[in-house]
Amino acid sequence: MKKVAVLMGSDSDLPVVERVVSKLAEFGAACELRVLSAHRTPSEAAQFSQKARGRGFGVIIAAAGKAAHLAGAIAANTTLPVIGIPLKSSALDGLDALLSTVQMPSGIPVATVAIDGAENAALLALSILSVSDRALAAKLAASRKAAAERVLEKDRAISEKFRA
Amino acid sequence: MKKVAVLMGSDSDLPVVERVVSKLAEFGAACELRVLSAHRTPSEAAQFSQKARGRGFGVIIAAAGKAAHLAGAIAANTTLPVIGIPLKSSALDGLDALLSTVQMPSGIPVATVAIDGAENAALLALSILSVSDRALAAKLAASRKAAAERVLEKDRAISEKFRA
Amino acid sequence: MKKVAVLMGSDSDLPVVERVVSKLAEFGAACELRVLSAHRTPSEAAQFSQKARGRGFGVIIAAAGKAAHLAGAIAANTTLPVIGIPLKSSALDGLDALLSTVQMPSGIPVATVAIDGAENAALLALSILSVSDRALAAKLAASRKAAAERVLEKDRAISEKFRA
Amino acid sequence: MKKVAVLMGSDSDLPVVERVVSKLAEFGAACELRVLSAHRTPSEAAQFSQKARGRGFGVIIAAAGKAAHLAGAIAANTTLPVIGIPLKSSALDGLDALLSTVQMPSGIPVATVAIDGAENAALLALSILSVSDRALAAKLAASRKAAAERVLEKDRAISEKFRA
Amino acid sequence: MKKVAVLMGSDSDLPVVERVVSKLAEFGAACELRVLSAHRTPSEAAQFSQKARGRGFGVIIAAAGKAAHLAGAIAANTTLPVIGIPLKSSALDGLDALLSTVQMPSGIPVATVAIDGAENAALLALSILSVSDRALAAKLAASRKAAAERVLEKDRAISEKFRA
Amino acid sequence: MKKVAVLMGSDSDLPVVERVVSKLAEFGAACELRVLSAHRTPSEAAQFSQKARGRGFGVIIAAAGKAAHLAGAIAANTTLPVIGIPLKSSALDGLDALLSTVQMPSGIPVATVAIDGAENAALLALSILSVSDRALAAKLAASRKAAAERVLEKDRAISEKFRA
Amino acid sequence: MKKVAVLMGSDSDLPVVERVVSKLAEFGAACELRVLSAHRTPSEAAQFSQKARGRGFGVIIAAAGKAAHLAGAIAANTTLPVIGIPLKSSALDGLDALLSTVQMPSGIPVATVAIDGAENAALLALSILSVSDRALAAKLAASRKAAAERVLEKDRAISEKFRA
Amino acid sequence: MKKVAVLMGSDSDLPVVERVVSKLAEFGAACELRVLSAHRTPSEAAQFSQKARGRGFGVIIAAAGKAAHLAGAIAANTTLPVIGIPLKSSALDGLDALLSTVQMPSGIPVATVAIDGAENAALLALSILSVSDRALAAKLAASRKAAAERVLEKDRAISEKFRA
Repeated sequence: MKKVAVLMGSDSDLPVVERVVSKLAEFGAACELRVLSAHRTPSEAAQFSQKARGRGFGVIIAAAGKAAHLAGAIAANTTLPVIGIPLKSSALDGLDALLSTVQMPSGIPVATVAIDGAENAALLALSILSVSDRALAAKLAASRKAAAERVLEKDRAISEKFRA
Repeated sequence: MKKVAVLMGSDSDLPVVERVVSKLAEFGAACELRVLSAHRTPSEAAQFSQKARGRGFGVIIAAAGKAAHLAGAIAANTTLPVIGIPLKSSALDGLDALLSTVQMPSGIPVATVAIDGAENAALLALSILSVSDRALAAKLAASRKAAAERVLEKDRAISEKFRA
Repeated sequence: MKKVAVLMGSDSDLPVVERVVSKLAEFGAACELRVLSAHRTPSEAAQFSQKARGRGFGVIIAAAGKAAHLAGAIAANTTLPVIGIPLKSSALDGLDALLSTVQMPSGIPVATVAIDGAENAALLALSILSVSDRALAAKLAASRKAAAERVLEKDRAISEKFRA
Repeated sequence: MKKVAVLMGSDSDLPVVERVVSKLAEFGAACELRVLSAHRTPSEAAQFSQKARGRGFGVIIAAAGKAAHLAGAIAANTTLPVIGIPLKSSALDGLDALLSTVQMPSGIPVATVAIDGAENAALLALSILSVSDRALAAKLAASRKAAAERVLEKDRAISEKFRA
Repeated sequence: MKKVAVLMGSDSDLPVVERVVSKLAEFGAACELRVLSAHRTPSEAAQFSQKARGRGFGVIIAAAGKAAHLAGAIAANTTLPVIGIPLKSSALDGLDALLSTVQMPSGIPVATVAIDGAENAALLALSILSVSDRALAAKLAASRKAAAERVLEKDRAISEKFRA
Repeated sequence: MKKVAVLMGSDSDLPVVERVVSKLAEFGAACELRVLSAHRTPSEAAQFSQKARGRGFGVIIAAAGKAAHLAGAIAANTTLPVIGIPLKSSALDGLDALLSTVQMPSGIPVATVAIDGAENAALLALSILSVSDRALAAKLAASRKAAAERVLEKDRAISEKFRA
Repeated sequence: MKKVAVLMGSDSDLPVVERVVSKLAEFGAACELRVLSAHRTPSEAAQFSQKARGRGFGVIIAAAGKAAHLAGAIAANTTLPVIGIPLKSSALDGLDALLSTVQMPSGIPVATVAIDGAENAALLALSILSVSDRALAAKLAASRKAAAERVLEKDRAISEKFRA
Repeated sequence: MKKVAVLMGSDSDLPVVERVVSKLAEFGAACELRVLSAHRTPSEAAQFSQKARGRGFGVIIAAAGKAAHLAGAIAANTTLPVIGIPLKSSALDGLDALLSTVQMPSGIPVATVAIDGAENAALLALSILSVSDRALAAKLAASRKAAAERVLEKDRAISEKFRA
C-alpha cells in the first residue's frame, strides 16, 4: 500500500492532524507527518511535493487555516491526489480557509473536505488507495458496516427509551 | 484503467458536466454519464452507487446545485472516492451547493472541488486513477508541463508587449 | 390523531430533539423517536420514510447538522410533509445546515424552521395535524393565547418597574 | 379539500406566485390569491389571517422579499400551517428574505422553502392537505412517480447519447 | 420634550434595552419601556404604535433578534420615526436580525443601528428630538465634546506611556 | 420646516439620490444636494456637517457605496440625525456598504436604511421632521393611507382576476 | 525611482491589470508586467520574487481571482512590500479572492486592496515609493488635490442644477 | 529610518496594538502610539494625518473595529502608505471591519491586513521602510530565515516523534 503524507501549515494544527493519523492507523496505512508551510518554508514544501510520488506516496493530505494555501501549493507541484482540510481559526469560523482551499483555478485540483474534517480526510485518502487495493476496499466496507451498526444500535436504544 | 462515472442531478446540469467529459476524454479515460437525482430517483442513485465498484468504476464524480445532496448520497453507498462539483444556480451564487457538498459529517467523505469546477473534477479523478497507473501519471505530468508552457508563452507575449 | 416521527441524524443531536418531544407531549401528540442517518444508514432512512404514511404517521420531523441531508433524503421517499431542523454545529454557525435543508430542488419540498428551532418544528407539526383536527386546533389556539398572556404579564411587570 | 391561500407582499411578486397557482391547479386544489402587505396593509393582513381557518382554508402560502415579514405576520395571527417563500430581490441574492422568513422566534413557526421556491411551496401545501386526504396523497405519489420517470427517461437518453 | 418609547420583543432582551434606558436618562428624556412582540402579541404592538403619536411619543425604539420584525411591525402602524436595534442571538451572530430590520421595503422606513447598538439607538432618538429642541441639541453637543475629551485624555495617557 | 441635506459620495450615485429628491419634493420639503466625499473632500464634508444645524438643516441623508464612510464622517461632526443609504456597487452586492454604514461604534449613531433604499431615506427624514410638525405628520399619514389604498386596489384586481 | 512589478495569475486578468499600468504610467513609474501563476508556474513565480529586490523592484503588485494565492506566494519569497488585488470571478463575487489574499498567516504580510481595486493598488505602490522620494510625494499630493478639485467641481454643478 | 505611527480607534484596542509595537521594537523601528478616533476625535485624526509626513513618519498603521473608518479617514488626509488592521469585535467576527477597511473607493488606498493581524501590519510597515533601507531589508531577511528555521525545527521534531 502506498504511503499517505500528512502535512500541516503550523505545529499549532497538530490537534486536528493527529485525528487524521489515528484514523489512518486504524486501517494500517503508513503515513509521514510533516510541518511544511506554503508561506514560511515554501521551497521545502515544493520539494517535498515534487518528490512525493517518487518516494512512494499515494496521497497527500494538507491542513491549514486562514488564507490556507498549503494544499494548493502542494497540488501545484505534484499530480498525486491532494486532499485539503480547511481549519477553523480565530476569525470567520473557517470560511476563509474553506474558500482558499476549495476555489482552486482550473488545472490544479484540491480535494477539499469539511472545515476541521480530519477523519474524512483520512477516509478519503484510504478510499483513493482502495481503488487498486481490494483488501483495503474490504476493510473500508467493513468499517462502514460497523459504523452503520453503531447508529442502528443507538437508534434501537433511543427509540426504545422514548417509547417506554 | 478503471472507469469514471459522471453523474448529474438534473439534465439541466449537462453544460457543466460536458466539460468533465471532454477533459476525461483528453486522457483517454472511459466514462459513463448518468442523470441520477438524490431526491427524484433516490433508489436508482443508491443502486448505481452500491454496484459501482463491482462494475469497474474507480471514481465517481457527482455534480449538483442548491441543496446539493447527490455527491453525499452517492458517497453514503460506496467506499469508492466520490468527487462533488457544487453548481452555481440562480440564487446565492453557489454557496448553498458548496456547503451542502463539502460539509459532510464524519464517516462519509466527499472530495469537493470549486463551484462549477468541472475541469478540476476530471483532473482529480485522473490523479486518483494515476496512483496505480504510471502511464496515466506520466500523461498528467506532461499535461501539467504543457499548461505551464502555455502560461510562460503568454507571460513572454504580454511582458514583451508592455515593455515595448 | 396521526403520529409524528422525530428523526435525528446522530444521537448527539438528542438535546435539541428532546425539546421537540417535550413540546409534542404538551399537546398529547404521539411520536416515535429514531436515529436515522442519510449517510450512515441510508437504506434504513429510506425504508422508514417509504412506510411512514402506511404506519400512521402524519408528519416527519428531521434534525441534522452540517451538510444536513436527512430531511431531504426523507422527503425524497414520501409525500408526507417533512419538517427540517437545521442544527448549529461547530463551524459556520448553522448556515451550512440551513442552506442544505432549505434550498431543496423543485419537486421535493422540505418545510424548514430556524436553526435549532426545535419548539417551532413541533408546533408546525401540530399545526399541520390541526388542519383536520378541531380539538387540536383549539388546543393550539389556547396555547397561543396563554403564551400571549405571559408576554403581556411580563410587559406589565417590566413597564411597571421602569415607570416607578 | 380545504382551500389554499396564496399571499404576496406586492403585486410585483406575481410572476413567482403564478407558479404556485399553476402547481396547485395541477392537483385541482382550490386557492385564493391575495396581495397583502405586512407593512403597507398590516390590519388587512392580520384580519385575513385571523379568519382564514374559519373561512375554510387549510394552508396559507406567503411570498415576500427583502425584510420579508409577511409569512411571520400571517403566522402570528393563525395556528394554521403557514408556508413562507423568500423572494430574491435586487440585492443580497435573497439571503435577507430567507433569514427574515426562516429565523422565526420560538412559538410562531413558518415552514420555509427555498428562495423563489414556488413549486415546492405548492407541493408542501398539497402534502399538508394530503395528511387527511387519501385521494390527494395518491395523486401526489403518482406525480412523484411521473417526475421520477421523466428523470429516468433523460438518464436513458443522455447516457445513451454519450455512450455512442 | 416628547417621550421615547422603548420596546423589546421579549423580556430576555432586557439587558440590552436597559442600556438604552440609561443613556436616555443621562439626558433627562422621559421614556416608557414595553414588552411587545410582533409575533406573540401582534395586536397589542399594532395598537401601541397607532396611538403613540397621540400619546406624546416622538420616537419609538424597537429591539428584537432573529427574524426581527418588531421595528418593521411598529413602523407599519405609525409615521413617527422608528429606530430598530437588531439583537445578536445564539446563531448567525445577529446577521439575521440586521437584515430583517434594515432591508425594509419601500414605503415603511426603519432607522437601523448596529447589532446590539443600544447606546446609539438612544443617541439617535435624542438627536431626532433635538431637531426642534435647542436645549437638547446643546446637551448632545456637550456630551460629544466630553466624549472627545475622554478620548483625548486616553490618547495623552497612552502616547505618554509608550513614549517613555 | 427645516431643510434636508442630501449628500452623495460620488456623482455616479446621482441616479439613486435623485429618487430621494423626488420623494422629498412630493412632500414639499426643501433640500440641498451635495457631492461630498469622506475620502476625497474630507474637510469640505466635515465643514458642511459642522455648520448644518446652524444653516437650518434638520436632517442629513448620506449615500455611499463600498467602504461607505460618508454617513459616519458626517455624523462625527454633527448631532443632527444622519441617515445613511448603503449603495450597491459592482462587488459584494452592497453588503460592504451596509456593514460600513450600520456598524457604527458607540457614541456616533447613523440611521441606516436598506441597500439602495432611497425612498425610505426620504420618508425617514420626513418622519423625523414630522415630530414637531403636525401638518407634515398629517401629510405622511395621508400618503401612507394612499399607498395602502393602492395595495388594496391591486389586491382586488388580482384576487378578482384569479377567482374568475 | 525603484520599479514596480505587476503580476497577474492568468492572462485573462489583463483588463484589470492594465488599469494598474495606466495609473502607474500617469506618475512616470517604471513597471514590468508578468503572467506568473502560483499554481501553474510556481517555480517561476518563486524565482521572480526571490530576485525582485536585487533587480531593482521596490514593490510587487499581484492580481488573482478565486483561491487567490499569487500575492501570498510572492510574499513568501521576498521581504519587499507585496500588494494583492483580489479579483471578482464568476462565483461568490470576489469574496473568495478577498479572503484568500487578506487572511495571511502571521509572518508573511500582503497589503490587500479592494476587490478589482486596480487604481488603488497602483496608488498604494506609488505611496510606498514616495516614502523616500520627495518628488513623487509632491506628485501624489498634487494628484489628490486635482481629484478633490474634480469632486468640488461636480459638487458645484450638481448642487447648482438642483437648486435651480 | 522614518518613524511608524500606530493609531487605534479606541483604547480598548490596545491589546492588539501592543503586538504591533512589540514587533516594531524587535527591529528597532521608532514608533508613536496614538488613540485617534475617526468618529469621536475626527479633527485630531485629520490633523495628525496631514502633518505626519512632515513630522518624519514613513508609514501609518491604523487599527479599528466594526464600521472601521479610521484607516480610511487617515488615508484621506495623507499620501503616505496607510495600513489598516480590521479588528474582531463582538458581532460578525470582524467581517464588518474587514469590508469597511479594504473596500476603499478608487483614489484613496488602504493596505489591509488580516483581521487582528497585528504582527503582519508591523512587518508590512517594516517592508515598506526597507525599500530604501538596505540594513532593514537585511534584518527582515534574517528574521524570515529564523522563522523558517523554527518551522523546520518543529517539522523535524514532529516528523521524528510520529515516525518513532
